Amino acid sequence: MAARAPMRPLGTRPLKMIKKKPIKTWVTLDVIEKTGKKLSNWGKWGPKDEVGTLNFVGPKELVNAGKMIKQGKAFSLGLPFDQNGPQVGSGWGRRFNPIHAMLASGVDAVAGRLDSGKIRYADDFVMMPLQCGTQWDALGHIFYGDKMWNGYDARLVDSTGAKKNGIHKTRDRMVGRGVLLDIPRFLGGDYLEDGYGISNAELDACAKAQGVEVRRGDFVIVRTGQMERCLAQGDWGAYAAGDAPGLRFETCEWIHQKEIAAICFDTWGCEVRPNESTEAFQPWHWIVIPMIGITMGEIFYLKDLAADCAADRVYEFMFCGPPLPITGAVGSPINPMAIK
Amino acid sequence: MAARAPMRPLGTRPLKMIKKKPIKTWVTLDVIEKTGKKLSNWGKWGPKDEVGTLNFVGPKELVNAGKMIKQGKAFSLGLPFDQNGPQVGSGWGRRFNPIHAMLASGVDAVAGRLDSGKIRYADDFVMMPLQCGTQWDALGHIFYGDKMWNGYDARLVDSTGAKKNGIHKTRDRMVGRGVLLDIPRFLGGDYLEDGYGISNAELDACAKAQGVEVRRGDFVIVRTGQMERCLAQGDWGAYAAGDAPGLRFETCEWIHQKEIAAICFDTWGCEVRPNESTEAFQPWHWIVIPMIGITMGEIFYLKDLAADCAADRVYEFMFCGPPLPITGAVGSPINPMAIK
Amino acid sequence: MAARAPMRPLGTRPLKMIKKKPIKTWVTLDVIEKTGKKLSNWGKWGPKDEVGTLNFVGPKELVNAGKMIKQGKAFSLGLPFDQNGPQVGSGWGRRFNPIHAMLASGVDAVAGRLDSGKIRYADDFVMMPLQCGTQWDALGHIFYGDKMWNGYDARLVDSTGAKKNGIHKTRDRMVGRGVLLDIPRFLGGDYLEDGYGISNAELDACAKAQGVEVRRGDFVIVRTGQMERCLAQGDWGAYAAGDAPGLRFETCEWIHQKEIAAICFDTWGCEVRPNESTEAFQPWHWIVIPMIGITMGEIFYLKDLAADCAADRVYEFMFCGPPLPITGAVGSPINPMAIK
Amino acid sequence: MAARAPMRPLGTRPLKMIKKKPIKTWVTLDVIEKTGKKLSNWGKWGPKDEVGTLNFVGPKELVNAGKMIKQGKAFSLGLPFDQNGPQVGSGWGRRFNPIHAMLASGVDAVAGRLDSGKIRYADDFVMMPLQCGTQWDALGHIFYGDKMWNGYDARLVDSTGAKKNGIHKTRDRMVGRGVLLDIPRFLGGDYLEDGYGISNAELDACAKAQGVEVRRGDFVIVRTGQMERCLAQGDWGAYAAGDAPGLRFETCEWIHQKEIAAICFDTWGCEVRPNESTEAFQPWHWIVIPMIGITMGEIFYLKDLAADCAADRVYEFMFCGPPLPITGAVGSPINPMAIK
Repeated sequence: MAARAPMRPLGTRPLKMIKKKPIKTWVTLDVIEKTGKKLSNWGKWGPKDEVGTLNFVGPKELVNAGKMIKQGKAFSLGLPFDQNGPQVGSGWGRRFNPIHAMLASGVDAVAGRLDSGKIRYADDFVMMPLQCGTQWDALGHIFYGDKMWNGYDARLVDSTGAKKNGIHKTRDRMVGRGVLLDIPRFLGGDYLEDGYGISNAELDACAKAQGVEVRRGDFVIVRTGQMERCLAQGDWGAYAAGDAPGLRFETCEWIHQKEIAAICFDTWGCEVRPNESTEAFQPWHWIVIPMIGITMGEIFYLKDLAADCAADRVYEFMFCGPPLPITGAVGSPINPMAIK
Repeated sequence: MAARAPMRPLGTRPLKMIKKKPIKTWVTLDVIEKTGKKLSNWGKWGPKDEVGTLNFVGPKELVNAGKMIKQGKAFSLGLPFDQNGPQVGSGWGRRFNPIHAMLASGVDAVAGRLDSGKIRYADDFVMMPLQCGTQWDALGHIFYGDKMWNGYDARLVDSTGAKKNGIHKTRDRMVGRGVLLDIPRFLGGDYLEDGYGISNAELDACAKAQGVEVRRGDFVIVRTGQMERCLAQGDWGAYAAGDAPGLRFETCEWIHQKEIAAICFDTWGCEVRPNESTEAFQPWHWIVIPMIGITMGEIFYLKDLAADCAADRVYEFMFCGPPLPITGAVGSPINPMAIK
Repeated sequence: MAARAPMRPLGTRPLKMIKKKPIKTWVTLDVIEKTGKKLSNWGKWGPKDEVGTLNFVGPKELVNAGKMIKQGKAFSLGLPFDQNGPQVGSGWGRRFNPIHAMLASGVDAVAGRLDSGKIRYADDFVMMPLQCGTQWDALGHIFYGDKMWNGYDARLVDSTGAKKNGIHKTRDRMVGRGVLLDIPRFLGGDYLEDGYGISNAELDACAKAQGVEVRRGDFVIVRTGQMERCLAQGDWGAYAAGDAPGLRFETCEWIHQKEIAAICFDTWGCEVRPNESTEAFQPWHWIVIPMIGITMGEIFYLKDLAADCAADRVYEFMFCGPPLPITGAVGSPINPMAIK
Repeated sequence: MAARAPMRPLGTRPLKMIKKKPIKTWVTLDVIEKTGKKLSNWGKWGPKDEVGTLNFVGPKELVNAGKMIKQGKAFSLGLPFDQNGPQVGSGWGRRFNPIHAMLASGVDAVAGRLDSGKIRYADDFVMMPLQCGTQWDALGHIFYGDKMWNGYDARLVDSTGAKKNGIHKTRDRMVGRGVLLDIPRFLGGDYLEDGYGISNAELDACAKAQGVEVRRGDFVIVRTGQMERCLAQGDWGAYAAGDAPGLRFETCEWIHQKEIAAICFDTWGCEVRPNESTEAFQPWHWIVIPMIGITMGEIFYLKDLAADCAADRVYEFMFCGPPLPITGAVGSPINPMAIK
């Protein structure tokens, strides 16, 4: 199914692409193992922790987040959930786009089919993979070997759900100061070419150019422009699991050192694809979720927020992206808000 | 299935009930019609409006909402979504509790079943009525005769969803100043008896006693204690669609006059049950959604927030409850946040 | 998703196509109306009938059906239900391929995750449109104007299902004598070109050439070879709702006159596409289901049965295709059996 | 949800119960292991077999099955699939009753909501556990230790389904001669008390009294009357996974020796509950599915068939119960037919 401009007509100006530079496939299983050991946060917040870097957000950070609201503008970063979503073709991991159906409708109501119940109403339900659209990965989503975040046995996520590191543990934690890093605008374009690998230096340089500081406990949202390119083309193509711009493996270090609460992207999987590894699929994931314990947001819709930040040069905001507390889930669909 | 204390052990102190007073069944279809005509907001925000009283929240209200965050405390008002939810028995309107299942698990991962894909992960999906737990009603959820909010034809909500007044239209609007009205605490108890009808005077008196002012554009959250009684008893009983404490029909006037953005409850349906009508089921709904155009939140978990407000005597906070923008949906599961 | 050979490797011999002949778009709404009036079976089995032409199967026909079993060979005519099914692309009417998931697995079992229950097991569930694969249309599936089979108000099929003409009414009726009409083999090829319209004369000539008589109460199964072409190509293409070989509109008369119990095809919708009408989609359906009351089977897998019939020249068999008695459903997935 | 008489009004005559006799809990894990070794059919049909005792049905048996049809009467043994099914309360193993919903309805049609597509239709889908109602267990449903039928590794049933012993492997095998053993009628009552354990001797004596011989390759259907008692009471009670009449563990021997193709019951789980074991849940299952390789049918609706057999004293018939060939499924909902 073709992609659809989800909210407003997209302009017809040709989008300017930032070309990728060559990247090497240097990330062997050995490199992953050493990086994991080096950057592990296991035990940092005690042996019973299940929320990882969200611990970096404390009362002070929350109060500060509220201060970001100066103009009274709210932006939804959630892509519409419907059959026009990015799960096209076979659907990685058997994911599919949301299926929405009615239990009762206005047409039933007007036809008098509900009048015996003395109220005219519509009601509905949905079937959806929890990571089919704008989403959080729970810390139980990715494993390293036989373990997950904080050293828990991966088998604690069985067919009945996650007994540890489920998304419901983060139910009151997904709020804080948000920062947008708009990489293609910083580089003078509209979107990064698929395969463009963002480096630590570029993250820092972008923040500096934007006049914004990345702080401990921040929800860092990185724009690549890939989603907007797909929407403008009316075709998701290989957006889900195919080639994509994204973070280089070296940014594991950046994430660890910055002590941010979460990292979010407008792509399917945050990291550059093709990956810098032939031995692992999404090697950056192997580290950041199970070893660093960072919460990851994916498939964020950033067009409107990015345009506003470019216009007023304010790249910080209050961020609030509460997950659905689905017990034992390893992800959650969300509609994150950025409020300036 | 029995209810379960969803977040923390509930105390064993016997809960104190506030007894109901007799209420009359005076709300005839004629009363409903006259009230609807009197309180109609149709056209108030133009003929194309689909968000109703959410229009009362403007930039000034948003900026003010941010100022509510003074201590850095965040409260989740979302009940866990799982098989222990309130849709017990036959399920009103064929609603059921969420069904969560895995597409891949940690047990698969450890057994090596995923290693051909070079990543070990878990993934999952959910099937759920959009109003099975903590939720927003969209303006397309309730009809008055053949019409819905702003005069749209109810048949615009057909088997393919809501062409008007869908929940996705509110995607960036569910944020503002929140106010808690804790009726049972105000009345000296833990919960209101089923059938207790809250009056306009009680709403005003409660606010006054709490030292909080209800303002234009507020998200007003009313606590009855009913959910906490069910959780303490470990049995939902008739929580869904049965007898309940809640607003009297006269509060349609209060809601209209206060110009609040939304009204939310810890009950299944906000209004008192048995209803004050024998001719209509949920007569208050007939007015407030299709005629006034107010957004309604239901099944909110208020125990922790209420305890905190009682402790610090601060009953105002920033509220952020973004809906999932499911295209054409007439409701959305949510995890609303109150931030003080 | 690509089609997949569902049961056995398909041969590599190039398939021979029977070319279509031009067909005219002569079927106006007026023609449809006149045909419907002429062929209507409404009331034929009383005003309360909900099974239509299945009434042609009586005890005598059942006993005769048993006599068809002479060699002891059973053929499954059901396409596998999985993600490789024909609902590709947007899915006509929002249909999708079956989604199958586990509630417990052997991997859970071996990991000891189920041992507290003292049994090691796997369990699963499915989500599927009832007409996504091999299927029966119930008589409540297609309407003529505001009516359905036997004159019932179409509004008796509302969001809660079919109050009349549901598939469950046929729960013990889908058994009898089966006859295969293998049109492409009769015409000297492997499959009919999309757009090939089968005439009354061809149906009769095929039966005659095959040495089989079509009798009152038969389950007539027509092969076009389209499904096998798709499977051989590994691509469903526009199989679902696109161009297809199939019956001409004139065959409404043939069906009515032959007094058969059911008609089944290896295509998505039995009738030729593009249709012979610009004013109606699937005009033949408008007549045969609501006016004649015939049960229709679609997406039957006929390769093995057809090969066997060609080999032994026996085109009759016992047919047994019981629907799932899903209360109020307007269709059912099936795995029909032909037994010779 | 209350049970509902699924097909016809049930009589009001009080049902007569056959009282249970004491049974011992003698089935230790050691007994199970020894029995499993003794009765194992692993390898009997080669190392690649995935259908077990269905191999006992050959052409001769199929031809003979057809000869059972003498009167032209067909009986549906499928319970309706709907919200009134037996998965009440918590649902063993998270099973739930079928959820049926519409994609388009007759009410949409009459309201003109479908006319742009030039056809008026209804369409629907279902979500259902594959073993929520009348069903087959696949051979991949129950494991013995780390193995399943024919010695396959149980981990071949993972979150993506059964790679071996899936129900789809039996797609053309579920047809043959059927025999009903009506135990309560044989014992002079309407139903067996929960906890009544049927012995080998009783199976043989019942067959003898009925004048029917159980033969190699038969589909043996045993009636306990439990379902009819539940339907008459309008309450499923603990039908699913609670106490029940059923086979004693010793019948593993009977099943093995008789070389029957399948064994089916009107109960949730065929064997007597409480079980004769404190060390295993459903110990008989541990043997008959993974070790003997027999196909098992459960939750069969037998009232009409049993009444007819009692009336004409003919307890044999053609049986046809094709599973839905859901790829990788470990069970299938069915609507089995008995034809006399």
